[in-house]
Amino acid sequence: MEAVRSASSEPARGPWPRYDAAALGFRNYWYPVLLSRQVRRKPRAITLCGEKIVLVRDQGRVYALHDRCPHRGVPLSCGRREFPGLLTCAYHGWTYDLATGRLEVVLTDGPDSPICGKANVRTYPVEERAGVIWVYVGEAPPPPVEADIPEELLRDDAVIEGLVEIRRGNWRYACENSVDEGHAKYLHRKTPWTYFSEFPAWTRGVRMAPSEDGQWLMRHREQSVFEDDYPRVGRWPPKRAWQSRNRGPSLSLGIRLPGVLRVVMRDWTDYEFFVPVDAHRHRALFLAVKFARGAPAALFRARFHSYIRPLYYGLLNRGQDQWMIEQMQTPPERLYRPDGSVTAWRKWCQEQARGDDDGAHALPSAGSRAAGAPAGAGSVRAAAVAAD
Amino acid sequence: MEAVRSASSEPARGPWPRYDAAALGFRNYWYPVLLSRQVRRKPRAITLCGEKIVLVRDQGRVYALHDRCPHRGVPLSCGRREFPGLLTCAYHGWTYDLATGRLEVVLTDGPDSPICGKANVRTYPVEERAGVIWVYVGEAPPPPVEADIPEELLRDDAVIEGLVEIRRGNWRYACENSVDEGHAKYLHRKTPWTYFSEFPAWTRGVRMAPSEDGQWLMRHREQSVFEDDYPRVGRWPPKRAWQSRNRGPSLSLGIRLPGVLRVVMRDWTDYEFFVPVDAHRHRALFLAVKFARGAPAALFRARFHSYIRPLYYGLLNRGQDQWMIEQMQTPPERLYRPDGSVTAWRKWCQEQARGDDDGAHALPSAGSRAAGAPAGAGSVRAAAVAAD
Amino acid sequence: MEAVRSASSEPARGPWPRYDAAALGFRNYWYPVLLSRQVRRKPRAITLCGEKIVLVRDQGRVYALHDRCPHRGVPLSCGRREFPGLLTCAYHGWTYDLATGRLEVVLTDGPDSPICGKANVRTYPVEERAGVIWVYVGEAPPPPVEADIPEELLRDDAVIEGLVEIRRGNWRYACENSVDEGHAKYLHRKTPWTYFSEFPAWTRGVRMAPSEDGQWLMRHREQSVFEDDYPRVGRWPPKRAWQSRNRGPSLSLGIRLPGVLRVVMRDWTDYEFFVPVDAHRHRALFLAVKFARGAPAALFRARFHSYIRPLYYGLLNRGQDQWMIEQMQTPPERLYRPDGSVTAWRKWCQEQARGDDDGAHALPSAGSRAAGAPAGAGSVRAAAVAAD
Repeated sequence: MEAVRSASSEPARGPWPRYDAAALGFRNYWYPVLLSRQVRRKPRAITLCGEKIVLVRDQGRVYALHDRCPHRGVPLSCGRREFPGLLTCAYHGWTYDLATGRLEVVLTDGPDSPICGKANVRTYPVEERAGVIWVYVGEAPPPPVEADIPEELLRDDAVIEGLVEIRRGNWRYACENSVDEGHAKYLHRKTPWTYFSEFPAWTRGVRMAPSEDGQWLMRHREQSVFEDDYPRVGRWPPKRAWQSRNRGPSLSLGIRLPGVLRVVMRDWTDYEFFVPVDAHRHRALFLAVKFARGAPAALFRARFHSYIRPLYYGLLNRGQDQWMIEQMQTPPERLYRPDGSVTAWRKWCQEQARGDDDGAHALPSAGSRAAGAPAGAGSVRAAAVAAD
Repeated sequence: MEAVRSASSEPARGPWPRYDAAALGFRNYWYPVLLSRQVRRKPRAITLCGEKIVLVRDQGRVYALHDRCPHRGVPLSCGRREFPGLLTCAYHGWTYDLATGRLEVVLTDGPDSPICGKANVRTYPVEERAGVIWVYVGEAPPPPVEADIPEELLRDDAVIEGLVEIRRGNWRYACENSVDEGHAKYLHRKTPWTYFSEFPAWTRGVRMAPSEDGQWLMRHREQSVFEDDYPRVGRWPPKRAWQSRNRGPSLSLGIRLPGVLRVVMRDWTDYEFFVPVDAHRHRALFLAVKFARGAPAALFRARFHSYIRPLYYGLLNRGQDQWMIEQMQTPPERLYRPDGSVTAWRKWCQEQARGDDDGAHALPSAGSRAAGAPAGAGSVRAAAVAAD
Repeated sequence: MEAVRSASSEPARGPWPRYDAAALGFRNYWYPVLLSRQVRRKPRAITLCGEKIVLVRDQGRVYALHDRCPHRGVPLSCGRREFPGLLTCAYHGWTYDLATGRLEVVLTDGPDSPICGKANVRTYPVEERAGVIWVYVGEAPPPPVEADIPEELLRDDAVIEGLVEIRRGNWRYACENSVDEGHAKYLHRKTPWTYFSEFPAWTRGVRMAPSEDGQWLMRHREQSVFEDDYPRVGRWPPKRAWQSRNRGPSLSLGIRLPGVLRVVMRDWTDYEFFVPVDAHRHRALFLAVKFARGAPAALFRARFHSYIRPLYYGLLNRGQDQWMIEQMQTPPERLYRPDGSVTAWRKWCQEQARGDDDGAHALPSAGSRAAGAPAGAGSVRAAAVAAD
């Protein structure tokens, strides 16, 4: 039941070789990994882009180290924050500086242990913003963490509720599903909240274009067709008398690197971060956000726990989207018109993703591009009709 | 605990290269896969000869399609029979004709979707006979399904009760065990129904020969020896005063392609179909059959549920035979005289099995043979004494 | 979570190529596998150095055969000791002599079965000593079993209690952990019995040297430092008023081939045999031994069950040591001063382990060495300071 996209060792094919090679994600990005409240003094192990990392909080700050003691390979997440600013391996008491990874003390070898300073552990940049812990993975010097956080999440009046899960399936399946124009019209048709509102049958003129600030690849639709006459099938979907047709402005949906969906609803916004764990699993970190203060803020938190979390993230997202993400098996694939949203995202990744400084996955065209520079919108739009 | 015979990728060895290569079964046969009552309107996924297939019933008829939507690789068995004669994929509403596999409608791309007719799914011939669903796997045009069904199962007075299980172990182990002359004398000695009847120690003159109609390879025995004097062991088996010796006609046992055992008992007949799933598992489909009408028919159905199913198929077949099928690990193997029944079956397969039209597994000698032509009985008999 | 040392197929590196290659253990040794009371008439399957073996007791004696019937590959451990001195395969009644492995009788082929004597099964030398079953694995003629048993275990007044478990992790991790000088000072600090006694911080001058009889590689320590002043950490460990400092003679700890730890405590001795199962698992056989008779012997048995077994072998050995053995992942590794005890053991194995007569793993220098000859102590001592 494993849904695995082509592993990075496979030869890249087609027009998105960087994207095809990125089974473990794009490097040189800040990734959200846990909610702030999930990391305390007890070390916590995570895997991010295939790398094993231990997170630990000390005197209010969170630190991240490679989760392997160089001595005998025991995970440092088995150890303890035994002394301020230091993490001690459970096995022999090798004790590392949380900020630098330097081996500072080896308890079981005396104060004069000659190995101190000679066996150090890699550290990872960590930041906390918006109630979330962000870890930087890559070889290039990290940009400010704000570069990889949707800016409105940092507003004073952002009321943020979150949810983190490890899920099966490569992160790219999750991203592609999130911008996939077609599936919502059929897969999500049978849910409680579609019972009283009419749901479109299909959409005319899907195209993707960068947002004004160049951060997001936005999905645009010319027209939603609410019912239609199909060959062999006739009128579809069947109209129910009690359903009202929503003629308001459609949802605003966008995606950005390194794999963040944003859906702006009438009065709250859904952020979905699809974070690579390994080639077979991703971390889904969801943030439900409303910009409010006082009573409306409290009401939104109540709505999150009573309604948004169980229905939106549970029934729809875990019960339907994740079901499909685990079933997908490509290549091969055979795309159709609404998949222009998917191919535009692949092309965006191919052109926009930051290059690998270590050259491991970098291609000449990608390596020579400045990190984070937005690609021309025209080329992205052109991709919107590539499928038939 | 996996019992795997040489996979098809291994070089064939010995005198039965086609048989050795048939880890996924022989192609161009009708295989029974489920009881009729097990397939309804809800799609059902099976694996047959390594191929993933979805079965669905519509307006009384059963259809079979390759269980993969070409769009993103989601199994069609996740979908629904949404409209008459059509199967709709759960993800984007791609809708296929059940009879032809043609993509007829794409709900989420509007009535004019240009991909219709361009992404079709392979279909499999399906028939229902004798309360069982038969699926044809192969490249050659299928013969009538009756060619692969023991003809007496189609009689009006056949009372048929069935049972289907997925079991571990390659289908060839199951077939070989079923004609294996020697094991019953020892493995099956300790069962409730042997408590009151004497059980032979060994059998003289086992040989295999085709039935008159050429369909079955029948097992013949010259003489059952009920007790004997062995070196080191002495008189065996120990005679118990209350056991009666069955001197009636022995059971009639035969096997036919593509892997069907028939054991004719005093008043009912046991059919066992060993159907390849993949290299490690097979589907065991058992039919208990009596030719009767009215009260005797009803009585037989009662016997099946009260006695035949729990004891014969449960205790003996699942508890003893299947235990051994899961334990077997060959090659290497070292055969003995009673294994003439096994080697004759291998030789029969080697010579009789229908050729592969796609040439993937075909050998020159096999490819040039007419499908289904019976081999000379002499050559089969010669195999009966090949082991020492 | 599998902790696997370099498999034997990997190229050997570094100064201990024989040791690095011995993923399945050293051959031509007697290994303890089960307690005597654990083998009765019912056949019992074990895996030893990667070989599948069936043990069975008949008329008081234990026998060991390769656990595979050559006929169809069914494990003989599925069978029964049906007749005195013989083991009968469950499938077809092939019956082997327990002492020689010769196929003596084939019940289902009659008294004159021509295959008798032509399909034999490999036997393994077995002995029972000290309440333990010892099996010899190797190609060279076995030495007396006493050559591989610590001699004091054979004394008349040895009171022996035992415990056997299959555990994850290669046997070498378990051995290395057992002589590892450093880990006890930190990993084992937090246990009930250290609550009332002071525990040293570190040890000065660890070295390994052969025992007088050349059988054991003994660990020696110049000085235990109970507390010290460390950079960044200060005084460690924190002294507690109620803890008493143990200034008595330190424990005597030694290890011998093929992987036996001995820890002589004040009034009992702990023997730990780390027996290779396969590359990923080892068999831990523990013997708690006291030399006594009468009431002290009975008291020791009571102590074993009430205290030694749950606390020493449970909490400390299974809860702490085994936890680390399962977490270790090397190579790479980065050793420090106390690891001289580990590297001396590797060097001892490299130089002392008996050669493989079949040449499969043997190196010229090892093959030409007399089995069991002790190496010069000087070269072992020199290894004690190889790490920094």
